[in-house]
Amino acid sequence: MYEVEMKVRADHDRVRKRLAELEADAAGTVRQVDTYYDHPTREFADTDEALRIRRETGEHRTDTRIAYKGPLVEAKSKTRAELETAVDDGETLASILEKLDFEAAATVEKTRERYRYDGYTVTLDTVTGLGEFLEVETEADVIEPAREGAEELLERLGFNPDEQIRTSYLGLLLEAGS
Amino acid sequence: MYEVEMKVRADHDRVRKRLAELEADAAGTVRQVDTYYDHPTREFADTDEALRIRRETGEHRTDTRIAYKGPLVEAKSKTRAELETAVDDGETLASILEKLDFEAAATVEKTRERYRYDGYTVTLDTVTGLGEFLEVETEADVIEPAREGAEELLERLGFNPDEQIRTSYLGLLLEAGS
Repeated sequence: MYEVEMKVRADHDRVRKRLAELEADAAGTVRQVDTYYDHPTREFADTDEALRIRRETGEHRTDTRIAYKGPLVEAKSKTRAELETAVDDGETLASILEKLDFEAAATVEKTRERYRYDGYTVTLDTVTGLGEFLEVETEADVIEPAREGAEELLERLGFNPDEQIRTSYLGLLLEAGS
Repeated sequence: MYEVEMKVRADHDRVRKRLAELEADAAGTVRQVDTYYDHPTREFADTDEALRIRRETGEHRTDTRIAYKGPLVEAKSKTRAELETAVDDGETLASILEKLDFEAAATVEKTRERYRYDGYTVTLDTVTGLGEFLEVETEADVIEPAREGAEELLERLGFNPDEQIRTSYLGLLLEAGS
């Protein structure tokens, strides 16, 4: 299963109007704080991998998940293999990683306002230090049709798929800081 | 918080009689399958650490937990710092560890029949390839009184604390295999 996603810079007020016209389903807002780890034997920014602990706070609960993201397998849509599972106690997991010599290398904080439309998740991201973005995303066993669907949806929302930003929020923040 | 534990070889039938005389509370039986991991940068057997995924199957459920155990801080009672948390999906976590170059180095399988007595957990372990053992265990902020209590309990159960086996089941299996 692949995560297929495309992301553009977007004025959220404008996108919300368009989503209302399309009668997309609102799916709630969450706050995510992501910590990315490096290891002395491997700088994941160099190997195009990521190891992340995500703490997500919704209306009623806080979840912690650990995720590994592999290198890009399809550059057009930022497609990569992803392994993720929930953990009970994020602080304990972070301590275990630190005992194994992993180091917290960067943090990304964002608010995500989600909608569902036509098999896709449409997310309005407000990223601390970076501003407003729109992401369309789905999961698929076969990449190409899912990517074409994401491009069509971006167009229906008033965006040019060529404006896609392939750099992750983490990468954008690292660029902004350097 | 430290885990204070002492372990001896034991004939389980004999221990069960003594536990009945002491009116210890039976606390159920579980099956544990532990996978221990090494990393190319660190053989945990050499550094006296352990990284473990434990799958525990009880009467009604299966749980998966990840644990890191640090080096011994008090040799007499096998006392070491321990970090542990539950995870949703053990297979995904194992895959993440493998992506990060950890390698499954050994597996320990055992059935654990537990009793509670006087603040201690008394466990009758049947370990595949090793046979029958008895373990007394508690958690404590201060090590020494907890260790003395464990020695007294071993004596009440009919054992000499000097017969304590300090080697872990993992270590015993590695010794038996070499």
